[in-house]
Amino acid sequence: MKNIVKPNAILEWATPDAIGVIERAGRTCYKSEEKITGNSSETFVRTILKSGHESVLEHAVASFRIICDRGVSHELVRHRIAAYSQESTRYCNYGKKSGISVIQPPKLSSSAYIIWESVIDRIEEAYLALLNDGCSPQIARSVLPNSLKTEIVATANFREWRHILKLRTSQKAHTQIKEVMLFVLDWFRKNYPVIVEDIV
Amino acid sequence: MKNIVKPNAILEWATPDAIGVIERAGRTCYKSEEKITGNSSETFVRTILKSGHESVLEHAVASFRIICDRGVSHELVRHRIAAYSQESTRYCNYGKKSGISVIQPPKLSSSAYIIWESVIDRIEEAYLALLNDGCSPQIARSVLPNSLKTEIVATANFREWRHILKLRTSQKAHTQIKEVMLFVLDWFRKNYPVIVEDIV
Amino acid sequence: MKNIVKPNAILEWATPDAIGVIERAGRTCYKSEEKITGNSSETFVRTILKSGHESVLEHAVASFRIICDRGVSHELVRHRIAAYSQESTRYCNYGKKSGISVIQPPKLSSSAYIIWESVIDRIEEAYLALLNDGCSPQIARSVLPNSLKTEIVATANFREWRHILKLRTSQKAHTQIKEVMLFVLDWFRKNYPVIVEDIV
Amino acid sequence: MKNIVKPNAILEWATPDAIGVIERAGRTCYKSEEKITGNSSETFVRTILKSGHESVLEHAVASFRIICDRGVSHELVRHRIAAYSQESTRYCNYGKKSGISVIQPPKLSSSAYIIWESVIDRIEEAYLALLNDGCSPQIARSVLPNSLKTEIVATANFREWRHILKLRTSQKAHTQIKEVMLFVLDWFRKNYPVIVEDIV
Repeated sequence: MKNIVKPNAILEWATPDAIGVIERAGRTCYKSEEKITGNSSETFVRTILKSGHESVLEHAVASFRIICDRGVSHELVRHRIAAYSQESTRYCNYGKKSGISVIQPPKLSSSAYIIWESVIDRIEEAYLALLNDGCSPQIARSVLPNSLKTEIVATANFREWRHILKLRTSQKAHTQIKEVMLFVLDWFRKNYPVIVEDIV
Repeated sequence: MKNIVKPNAILEWATPDAIGVIERAGRTCYKSEEKITGNSSETFVRTILKSGHESVLEHAVASFRIICDRGVSHELVRHRIAAYSQESTRYCNYGKKSGISVIQPPKLSSSAYIIWESVIDRIEEAYLALLNDGCSPQIARSVLPNSLKTEIVATANFREWRHILKLRTSQKAHTQIKEVMLFVLDWFRKNYPVIVEDIV
Repeated sequence: MKNIVKPNAILEWATPDAIGVIERAGRTCYKSEEKITGNSSETFVRTILKSGHESVLEHAVASFRIICDRGVSHELVRHRIAAYSQESTRYCNYGKKSGISVIQPPKLSSSAYIIWESVIDRIEEAYLALLNDGCSPQIARSVLPNSLKTEIVATANFREWRHILKLRTSQKAHTQIKEVMLFVLDWFRKNYPVIVEDIV
Repeated sequence: MKNIVKPNAILEWATPDAIGVIERAGRTCYKSEEKITGNSSETFVRTILKSGHESVLEHAVASFRIICDRGVSHELVRHRIAAYSQESTRYCNYGKKSGISVIQPPKLSSSAYIIWESVIDRIEEAYLALLNDGCSPQIARSVLPNSLKTEIVATANFREWRHILKLRTSQKAHTQIKEVMLFVLDWFRKNYPVIVEDIV
């Protein structure tokens, strides 16, 4: 009955011509707008990043729809300079839909997988039994696991995304938030490589 | 083996003479410090609150150590104008200690209690089995439930506490975050009643 | 030599299809995306605003280039949930350009205008004399007046713009920040009237 | 008539036993409270700072009353993770008091000093003349200079003070904000040297 779904991060929207926006904002400080040419933005942004004057990056914004488990979302929302709207375990009744959806932890051995899968099945049974017993979804949620799939829209400016990406794609990061953040990093690499060229 | 613990919120520290601090900061705007007397603060703060000029409340701060479940903590940290340090399921190994600790959901019927308790036992077994199978705590945590007890230090200014208390002690609030926030409200009622006298 | 310029606020960029973005983010919470139709956004946003659940407005962003005096910009940057890039009196040398630019205060009597204009001329002379005497622009700025024209790019989400517009277009607002914010309000009225229909 | 006053920053209040607070909050993450001894805080904080895990510093707060000019205060309030209450040029009527107060720019040559002083006198005359002509203080303020003395209460957590101190006491900082921030740095050096030992 449970569904196993894949983690993901998909762009909802981003500032049109983001690096042009950053250059125009940045040049306001020095009133050097006359230096803007058709292809000056990338160089301007690279210089800004090297000098550490990152506040101008805040004028460009990107919003992603993220699919992850509730452990990862709890880490994600600790980044406070961002907006979040998240699937609510208070209001969603997974009994009415086709059961719960979960994210499988990475690199489980086959024996670990069996342990994980069987307890997830048992948890789903208990959740449905609590609903049947008269509990509201917001009480029945008490048994739901960290592995529960959640969906969360996260909107942040480029400075904050850089901060998040540095922390959450590093070696110290939790494997599962890293997995999701690599989708975000990938979007930046394809669309605004200059923004992330110092993140490896 | 599992421990059932009670939710709580205990003061860590607060600004000494908080309403005096608020009055002195507020009177800076008008340079009306000559109106400060031994007992003018409470009236000053009441007037400020009525006029909606709440920014001066930000100069006073309180920090609480909160015991709640992971569902409640996920709601709490959505309040972004605050500092949090939280017990980490990545780094804590509950196998080495005396098993997991949980918070019991409120007002369970006796049949619901049996469902809840038995699946919590089953989850603890699976968590320990995953650790034994070689998983790290940060992977084994995937099966841990919303009911897992967590400890979190939350530091916020009085304006933000007022905002949190209004939302989280209202009728629409989740029963369990309300339970915890009533301890915070109680602290304000005892120490700075003027700060919360419009919160019922 | 001095230039008198007009206050203004001109859109730099805004989230494409902003109310569609808000609806999609908001419906993530309830997983009610199936209710989205070609014209459901406006009604959804109106309902959200009536219920006070304003956090979903944070997923839409608008950026304005604002021309105002330094008194107004000092008030504006007190709104902290926004990004700012401002013409710098440390780095701009108004001696090299065609002298200083200023914003004329509103509704001056003819006698007040004469007082204002003549001291502004005197200030400009002193600023240029200090530069000639070897002062750097960042020291010479010490004599520059509140009336000095400044240019500032301000980027904020729709929730914060609503907050700013409510405060800064009210009767209590300073006439000159109100003058500028009416340009912003006007942009919302033309493009997303539902966002500001409760602001009069 | 004008008064020349000295810049300053004086402590209003700070978290009692701030580094003890930081240690207790930080050890919550790992549930390693058993390692707390009578003198473990300083070493704990030093380790935290070396690892870059600065968020725990946010649980300690300090509030300063700052005397500076309006140019410096405009820079200061750009630091957004802080609370400010500032002497208002809208509501204070310097005509009713003993005239305006100003901060003298540093290191003026004697010829520059004469230029500065004479235009400040001229500005004060114009401000008083505008008030006499029927202008409200919030309109008359348009002629007031950057050198105008202002008083501002600034409350921020230790992480943000570290950020402010690094930027504003560096070689690139404006001389006058540096002058003020050295008073803040000095307070930390005397009271919590471990917090600022990497700031030179």
